[in-house]
Amino acid sequence: MNSSYSKATYRLYDDKADFNKKATGIAVGLTVGSWTELPEAAKQHMKKHLGEVVSVDVHEPDGAQPGERYADITIAYPDANFSRDIPALLVTVFGKLSMDGRIKLLDLQPSAEFLSAFPGPKFGIEGVRGLLGVPHRPLVMSIFKSVIGHDLAGLREQFLQQALGGVDLIKDDEILFENPLTPLEKRVEACMDAAREAERATGQKLIYFANLTGSTFKLRENALRAIDAGANGLLFNVLAYGFDALAELAADSAINVPIAAHPAMAGAYYPSAHHGIAAPLLLGKLMRIAGADLSLFPSPYGSVVMPKEENLAVQQALVTDELPQKKAFPVPSAGIHPGLTPLILSDFGTEVVVNAGGGVHGHPNGAAAGGQAFRQAVDAVLAGQSLEEYAKNNEQLRLAIERWGVHTS
Amino acid sequence: MNSSYSKATYRLYDDKADFNKKATGIAVGLTVGSWTELPEAAKQHMKKHLGEVVSVDVHEPDGAQPGERYADITIAYPDANFSRDIPALLVTVFGKLSMDGRIKLLDLQPSAEFLSAFPGPKFGIEGVRGLLGVPHRPLVMSIFKSVIGHDLAGLREQFLQQALGGVDLIKDDEILFENPLTPLEKRVEACMDAAREAERATGQKLIYFANLTGSTFKLRENALRAIDAGANGLLFNVLAYGFDALAELAADSAINVPIAAHPAMAGAYYPSAHHGIAAPLLLGKLMRIAGADLSLFPSPYGSVVMPKEENLAVQQALVTDELPQKKAFPVPSAGIHPGLTPLILSDFGTEVVVNAGGGVHGHPNGAAAGGQAFRQAVDAVLAGQSLEEYAKNNEQLRLAIERWGVHTS
Repeated sequence: MNSSYSKATYRLYDDKADFNKKATGIAVGLTVGSWTELPEAAKQHMKKHLGEVVSVDVHEPDGAQPGERYADITIAYPDANFSRDIPALLVTVFGKLSMDGRIKLLDLQPSAEFLSAFPGPKFGIEGVRGLLGVPHRPLVMSIFKSVIGHDLAGLREQFLQQALGGVDLIKDDEILFENPLTPLEKRVEACMDAAREAERATGQKLIYFANLTGSTFKLRENALRAIDAGANGLLFNVLAYGFDALAELAADSAINVPIAAHPAMAGAYYPSAHHGIAAPLLLGKLMRIAGADLSLFPSPYGSVVMPKEENLAVQQALVTDELPQKKAFPVPSAGIHPGLTPLILSDFGTEVVVNAGGGVHGHPNGAAAGGQAFRQAVDAVLAGQSLEEYAKNNEQLRLAIERWGVHTS
Repeated sequence: MNSSYSKATYRLYDDKADFNKKATGIAVGLTVGSWTELPEAAKQHMKKHLGEVVSVDVHEPDGAQPGERYADITIAYPDANFSRDIPALLVTVFGKLSMDGRIKLLDLQPSAEFLSAFPGPKFGIEGVRGLLGVPHRPLVMSIFKSVIGHDLAGLREQFLQQALGGVDLIKDDEILFENPLTPLEKRVEACMDAAREAERATGQKLIYFANLTGSTFKLRENALRAIDAGANGLLFNVLAYGFDALAELAADSAINVPIAAHPAMAGAYYPSAHHGIAAPLLLGKLMRIAGADLSLFPSPYGSVVMPKEENLAVQQALVTDELPQKKAFPVPSAGIHPGLTPLILSDFGTEVVVNAGGGVHGHPNGAAAGGQAFRQAVDAVLAGQSLEEYAKNNEQLRLAIERWGVHTS
């Protein structure tokens, strides 16, 4: 037993509630169950299990319309009450409570004691950079397109074309599962063979994130199969399996490759103002604590949109110095083309992965040219030049701009 | 390969979208990726992987206000595209798409082929009734209250008191995790010992659902530890681990006890009109397919509320003849007291578990009397008598009514 506490912050909408009473109800109800009725002797013993109200900030503007009144409530939960795993923490702080009215889990501030149980990302930003030998430059990732129904030869060729453009990272489509045409080990062998071929041409290293799928209790076995076949990265649909599966994979010394967390199903949680789990917690802090080396999330620019403020809060959670775990690469995704690169780097800095699918494959000269255009766009920004200026001597970037334009806001 | 399809139905809100175009975009984008641009030869080969639009029902009332226009869209996804597990199905149909605007997953209609991979509940309603020797009567379940910080003796006594009232099922609190005071095996031994003591007094069998917690890859081991210690039921926070963990536990022949699915965290998914996963799918159909013998969900009566229509749709999914899996017990929960029993049985029929915590423990004469009051309330309804009438000769029911009243609507 110890006396450390992990905190949870909620936004609770209610037109009439006494929010202070509500907060006390949460602090007691989700810990010792009842308090005021307890005999003094029991209180002595139970105090270390009792939740505490940290703060209640009521937002009730003058002339508030129905539905606008809310409070941000922070509760401290004794670590003594739950085991050192994310399911236990989430079920404690947002199990039953998630169903109790219009309430959204905004943030968790796990205690140092709780966090110490999580080794976090095995590589993190620095480790991934080390694997690639790219210490400073923003990385470029390319996504397979239209891989369902393709055979190994087709997949290998697509991998090769993407790789020849000089991207650093290539990820499977998250909806590519075990299948007879491109089964995991053969897919990994074919792609890594293409990676070596590309490396001979470009002189540059590549990480291939193979999609880790299948039954929960065989995830470790499947990860090891992929790694044995040569995979030097794994893609994982974390939310379909729970954060603990990621945490266990990341903590496993045999799984010695970086893990990219895909946000599949995240939209079931974060977009509502009144329900669910906020994106910076879901796709930022929890992904990092659980051990994602990279976390993908909807960019504020493209086809699948998340507001920029929320996006930058996800990024912040992935890179803040306030967590003991290694920093994880933010990968704002969806709808990215080379003309967005200045904006991405302006918003996210250089510790970012510029990630594209259509923006690579849709290049007029094909995927290799698409990759080159992204690399040229990154180089332009790092050189302090406008894309238009840099494109004068960089043909693939010029063609990309011709197709997609340049977006500066 | 085969040509069967699993269908998904979405509600998509958009004030302006061409919903037919949107539906085609989903059907193509989440399967083969692109279609119209494919050469004819490729189309021949890819056709079996192409999603199909089944229906698009646009709801656009005259004078619709902004935010009111929506369409219910059903898409058929070829089973050839994903493996036979729930993560693969969910990531395919609602992975990326969950983040694409105001869209909620209303229902899944997995193919017979997909469903055939899921043995479902090992016991189901009939099996649980068989274990208890209660073929027809609605069952009564009691929930531990305030168990955090209690020792084994306290837990055993609380179990005994609940059991002596004649309840059929007793479940752990879902927030009771592995802890030094009441570790899993010792807790099971203490509670099952109390169950035997109660059985000698009441002549009635009991199932104790021990909370299955801990790291994902040790769930099976922990389940077997509990069973070896004597547990004859397991409680599981399914949504904290994903549906596949439940499916694998339920399919495991060594885990030969019923599993009760707790809805912890479900409120992060179902309450929003615009995002997430509808309750009948989340807490009904998917729980049953994955193998829950009982599924708990917020009742329409009590403190944690779900609208009655939605509640009855959850029930329907658990008991419909349309699924090949055994039927699962609906357990409408939260805020239940004996005076609600006529209403529960009127809404849910006799294939239901009447489940209470405060409504048992808060009885003026204690938990044993609380359990008796529930059993008397059930007996009253089955005898066709009003609670008030029946209470004349049944003291514990009378006291319960005195405290909580009778609710008939």
